Amino acid sequence: MSDERDARAVREVLARYVRATDARDGKAQGALFTDDAVVRIRTRTGQGGYEPFGEPLIGGAAVAYAVENYMAPHPEGGAGHHITSDHIIEVDGDRAHMNAQFIVFRIRARRRPETGWPADTFGTQGSVEPVESGYYDTELRRVDREWKIVRHDVLLDMPMAVPGA
Amino acid sequence: MSDERDARAVREVLARYVRATDARDGKAQGALFTDDAVVRIRTRTGQGGYEPFGEPLIGGAAVAYAVENYMAPHPEGGAGHHITSDHIIEVDGDRAHMNAQFIVFRIRARRRPETGWPADTFGTQGSVEPVESGYYDTELRRVDREWKIVRHDVLLDMPMAVPGA
Amino acid sequence: MSDERDARAVREVLARYVRATDARDGKAQGALFTDDAVVRIRTRTGQGGYEPFGEPLIGGAAVAYAVENYMAPHPEGGAGHHITSDHIIEVDGDRAHMNAQFIVFRIRARRRPETGWPADTFGTQGSVEPVESGYYDTELRRVDREWKIVRHDVLLDMPMAVPGA
Repeated sequence: MSDERDARAVREVLARYVRATDARDGKAQGALFTDDAVVRIRTRTGQGGYEPFGEPLIGGAAVAYAVENYMAPHPEGGAGHHITSDHIIEVDGDRAHMNAQFIVFRIRARRRPETGWPADTFGTQGSVEPVESGYYDTELRRVDREWKIVRHDVLLDMPMAVPGA
Repeated sequence: MSDERDARAVREVLARYVRATDARDGKAQGALFTDDAVVRIRTRTGQGGYEPFGEPLIGGAAVAYAVENYMAPHPEGGAGHHITSDHIIEVDGDRAHMNAQFIVFRIRARRRPETGWPADTFGTQGSVEPVESGYYDTELRRVDREWKIVRHDVLLDMPMAVPGA
Repeated sequence: MSDERDARAVREVLARYVRATDARDGKAQGALFTDDAVVRIRTRTGQGGYEPFGEPLIGGAAVAYAVENYMAPHPEGGAGHHITSDHIIEVDGDRAHMNAQFIVFRIRARRRPETGWPADTFGTQGSVEPVESGYYDTELRRVDREWKIVRHDVLLDMPMAVPGA
């Protein structure tokens, strides 16, 4: 199997990751990780370094649980897109490393008034707002011909609030 | 021809699609579709499903006509970028399927004052605003060694206003 | 070496370029260019064409100097992401051409209050704002098995202010 086929397969793991996250589909998300995968969130400090946020998650089942229980569900008319870009990928046999940028967009659709759209409205109705950004730094391993995530660091550009903390 | 070369060719069809859309170049846009291609716009409902918006367009000539007659032209100083990301591509011989995320940005350049830029301005002048988002779900077929779109679904995250409707 | 491996290597040159720019790392940025590379900034005119902005930079050392001396440093809590998308790449032996879209995001983290986050805050704290956009049009050459940029045009969608000019 060529490196290029693997490089695309690795990139598509992240493409499935963002779709699962945006759909709040914990099962699909968890299936991308090995049972002993280590997932860490780190937030950027004012000085340019990163500090850990919370404890690491260990394994796909923990990832699935977190997506379904800790991520805020979309409100009616709400949606989200995590987009990734500028991947740098190294494949070495059954191991791979990927670094990518991400931006998270929060979508809020406007509800159609019961009397129909006002005469001066045209085109799509709602807002698309970038709300988070950072880097994903990810290690993968080939398991039974499929690439699975074994380490995933979410490097957020911003601090994360824990009320009162 | 390797799958990976095809996968890139397929992705670049979408890269040409967004450039043609942003340039409002109907001819370039239409040339990416077969004569019997089916193009559908679907808008997301509050409950997470999709509903059709308008009638399907059939064929590259209809796409060309729509780009030139139904898309709002950019005002002076205006521009647009449809960006696509997180492609998932399957190639099977002379057929291919691609799913991608998209975000549309509306650009409005500030006009340079006749007396020059004020003393407190620095850097690029204007606004970049995300206004639409969703997924493209696309089937392609290889025709005379070129990949052409045979089905293209634009899955918008938001409703589309038709004044008074 | 296959075209596809080269195409990815070329795309990853741009991925390293945006990371170096966002980190204001002149040395890393300069190393991506040949000594005689020509780098030009062009800004879009209201009529849809482009006009040159300033003089071209010549060579990697000039690029390094510009990144370190002319780009505004990020303030405390500040960060940036240049994201690229929709690459169109042609590889011809030891030469390559790439066209890509870019959007620049400005990130400003909110500083954690000394008394902790207020009780009504949740999630990431700060703003992610798109501020620039355009196209990169880039020629590369293979030098000692590495792809280097020999011409790089930054095609900005907006004018650039020079105070008082």
